[in-house]
Amino acid sequence: MIKFTEKAPYAPVEYLYDVEEILYKGKSAFQELMVIKNPYYGRMLILDDVVQITERDEFFYHEMLTHVVMHAHPGPKKVIVIGGGDGGVVREVLKHKTIEKCYFVEIDEEVINVSRKYFPDVSSGVDDPRVEIKIMDGADFVAKRKNADIDAVIIDSTDIIGFARTLFTPEFFTAVKNCLSDQGMFVTHTESLHFHKDMVIEIQEALKKVFPLVDLYTTPIATYPGNWWAFAVASKGASPREVRNKTKMKTKYYSGEIHQQSFVPKGFYDKLMKRELEW
Amino acid sequence: MIKFTEKAPYAPVEYLYDVEEILYKGKSAFQELMVIKNPYYGRMLILDDVVQITERDEFFYHEMLTHVVMHAHPGPKKVIVIGGGDGGVVREVLKHKTIEKCYFVEIDEEVINVSRKYFPDVSSGVDDPRVEIKIMDGADFVAKRKNADIDAVIIDSTDIIGFARTLFTPEFFTAVKNCLSDQGMFVTHTESLHFHKDMVIEIQEALKKVFPLVDLYTTPIATYPGNWWAFAVASKGASPREVRNKTKMKTKYYSGEIHQQSFVPKGFYDKLMKRELEW
Repeated sequence: MIKFTEKAPYAPVEYLYDVEEILYKGKSAFQELMVIKNPYYGRMLILDDVVQITERDEFFYHEMLTHVVMHAHPGPKKVIVIGGGDGGVVREVLKHKTIEKCYFVEIDEEVINVSRKYFPDVSSGVDDPRVEIKIMDGADFVAKRKNADIDAVIIDSTDIIGFARTLFTPEFFTAVKNCLSDQGMFVTHTESLHFHKDMVIEIQEALKKVFPLVDLYTTPIATYPGNWWAFAVASKGASPREVRNKTKMKTKYYSGEIHQQSFVPKGFYDKLMKRELEW
Repeated sequence: MIKFTEKAPYAPVEYLYDVEEILYKGKSAFQELMVIKNPYYGRMLILDDVVQITERDEFFYHEMLTHVVMHAHPGPKKVIVIGGGDGGVVREVLKHKTIEKCYFVEIDEEVINVSRKYFPDVSSGVDDPRVEIKIMDGADFVAKRKNADIDAVIIDSTDIIGFARTLFTPEFFTAVKNCLSDQGMFVTHTESLHFHKDMVIEIQEALKKVFPLVDLYTTPIATYPGNWWAFAVASKGASPREVRNKTKMKTKYYSGEIHQQSFVPKGFYDKLMKRELEW
């Protein structure tokens, strides 16, 4: 059997996947793109030798990245999605009937094109009339949106290295805050609590310098090394732990109870931030 | 760099670890044993090519396997640990000052010996006077302990194949129930909710035929493929979700709030058992 060896940054273990078929191999201005077929996961999107999504389990990440902030907000109308060229977050955003506008800001158009062709179920929403695709750096886009009354800014970046780094600076976080509505929410993944605990803490700290309320929730995701995936969420004051939006929609994993349970307990959070957790 | 490729049963991905040093390689009547040194995880115990514990992260599994049932019970005195030859569960059990007797039933003495030598911090409790080591099949041991007033039976088996299978039969579950005290609790790992969902469900179902109360909690563990590790717990009626035991002790991950949060939400549990969760 042909094998693909993943080289995830910072991960102390490599994952080895069986390859039934190489469906696509290409190179954009930003990265190498590959689509392979695995007997268990189905199609897998790989960027620079790191697994981004698989047909089988993409919904865990996409639902949990999207719906926590979208349900903490009582009725989001305008949303900015940065990254996530596969379209999975956009698909989840559009499940909210309140949505009037979804800016979909992806730096690498090739990811959108490859996903349209190889992951039609994931990219199903990208051509919806409410979606406006912007091929550019997300930080530049947000910087020009002051007072734009955005209800959620959702970052779906690759690992926090290289060109994705502009999405993790104080300047960017300030620009995000300035574009958000009063009840607006910001969310980004922050890698694994097992492998990248210091990064999880540092992003919480950086957000706290800009936002009055910053919090942390996690989801177990099998295809991201370390698996105990951490999400930072920030708001101007409204707690993201509360489910304010009661819109009914079909999800495979996310629910109101999963929403509330996914936030780390308060005592755990305090210990984490004091760097008292030893691993 | 020399690499170790893990061959975990049922897992659709292989894990690849750097090997700095091979500290031990041997073979018992039951399995092949290996101890390697990895730059991130430190020493790793490997049985039949499957990672069992690592110096760096063993506490996640050992604490969560042991302390949930030991804290749901108001003050456990007599405990049976089956498997877990490394001694990690025994070490955690002995943190409870109420303990008078800990039967440590391991089928393969070689695991205990290798752990004494290479994992002294893990096996630190196995020679405590409250511990009685029994080298035998755990199912045979429990079958002869009817009405023994045991407060907790803790299964720390390898993957649920081969000789470990005797610990997952209706006969065994009945024998466990018969040896438990009125407030006694039973716990066993049941693999990963990502990769082995059907097995998680089947063990819940099998336990429900024997015990009036069966429940499910999870913990993210980086070194077990699928990582979203599931634990089945059963009792004669007392809910394992409640923390009744207020004994103070030092743990790295377990706490009362982690205890309560680790149980899956009720709605999720119902959907899981109705086989309505699609992955």
